[in-house]
Amino acid sequence: MATEKLAKSEIEECLKGVSGWSVEDGKLHKQFQFESFVEAFGFMTSLALIAEKMNHHPEWFNVYNRVTIDLMTHDIGGISDLDFQLAKEADKLGG
Amino acid sequence: MATEKLAKSEIEECLKGVSGWSVEDGKLHKQFQFESFVEAFGFMTSLALIAEKMNHHPEWFNVYNRVTIDLMTHDIGGISDLDFQLAKEADKLGG
Amino acid sequence: MATEKLAKSEIEECLKGVSGWSVEDGKLHKQFQFESFVEAFGFMTSLALIAEKMNHHPEWFNVYNRVTIDLMTHDIGGISDLDFQLAKEADKLGG
Amino acid sequence: MATEKLAKSEIEECLKGVSGWSVEDGKLHKQFQFESFVEAFGFMTSLALIAEKMNHHPEWFNVYNRVTIDLMTHDIGGISDLDFQLAKEADKLGG
Repeated sequence: MATEKLAKSEIEECLKGVSGWSVEDGKLHKQFQFESFVEAFGFMTSLALIAEKMNHHPEWFNVYNRVTIDLMTHDIGGISDLDFQLAKEADKLGG
Repeated sequence: MATEKLAKSEIEECLKGVSGWSVEDGKLHKQFQFESFVEAFGFMTSLALIAEKMNHHPEWFNVYNRVTIDLMTHDIGGISDLDFQLAKEADKLGG
Repeated sequence: MATEKLAKSEIEECLKGVSGWSVEDGKLHKQFQFESFVEAFGFMTSLALIAEKMNHHPEWFNVYNRVTIDLMTHDIGGISDLDFQLAKEADKLGG
Repeated sequence: MATEKLAKSEIEECLKGVSGWSVEDGKLHKQFQFESFVEAFGFMTSLALIAEKMNHHPEWFNVYNRVTIDLMTHDIGGISDLDFQLAKEADKLGG
């Protein structure tokens, strides 16, 4: 079964299960802040391992101790359950 | 001696010593493309090690096999020799 | 179908398809050498991404620019096709 | 001033300031255990950034969720203050 695009109401529901994420420009968005670049990049490496395993990769931006993540499922042009799965993994790793 | 902001003419001169970099929004800019996320993130990790050692960190964005880097020296509000040093290291690693 | 332990003759055959690997203590073994720690750890990160995706992890040792890898399939107590797959990926990344 | 080899009594004293480290084969030794490879390798990446910045690199071994670290200062053939500095950084990152 293919990954399906979530409806607006489903996204609203799923947002309750994650922490600090919002929808911006049609993508699931969050900014993480760490104590240092060392911690920020350790977080990115752990999340990179998970993303590669899921074959579902983030759009992410980093400068020093900040990591900004935008998630969407490019194949379906919207937000899917995969994005919320990756968001939850990011929350587990990065607080 | 503090790092100094380069003049426009100095930047033009330095751009000749690097490959594929331009100035965008006052920052030294380049997009790298790799065969896969695996190679892109390996590149990012090597460059992260160099950046932390230089204590000079990039603004960078990644999605899948693309890495976009913007360099500036925040302390002086411009482009300095440090940015060209980091650009050269990125070129060495990422072709 | 489960991963199967390769017979000695099969291992000999497979060794012809990889570069610089040998069997030591019942494990597929190779030492990689890089120009610097920066390059060695970039290699390790790329290979870590592949290993996590395969759910097949190396035993590996690093000091400075050297990375020593030992591969075996713990579930079956021997060397399997998975080990040769990972060895080939390492060769592609690390020369 | 060069880094100096610590005397046995100094090492005993310094060991009180770190957690879970011992001297084995003349090296400062500790095994870290994590919940997963993902966490173990995130830890390694953060510590790699610190080690490269210090220009003082560990001998380390990883398999799955375990990371074994051995520290010594090769230039002086013994354990120095640098090793205890890196040990403390590892403790901060890896608990």
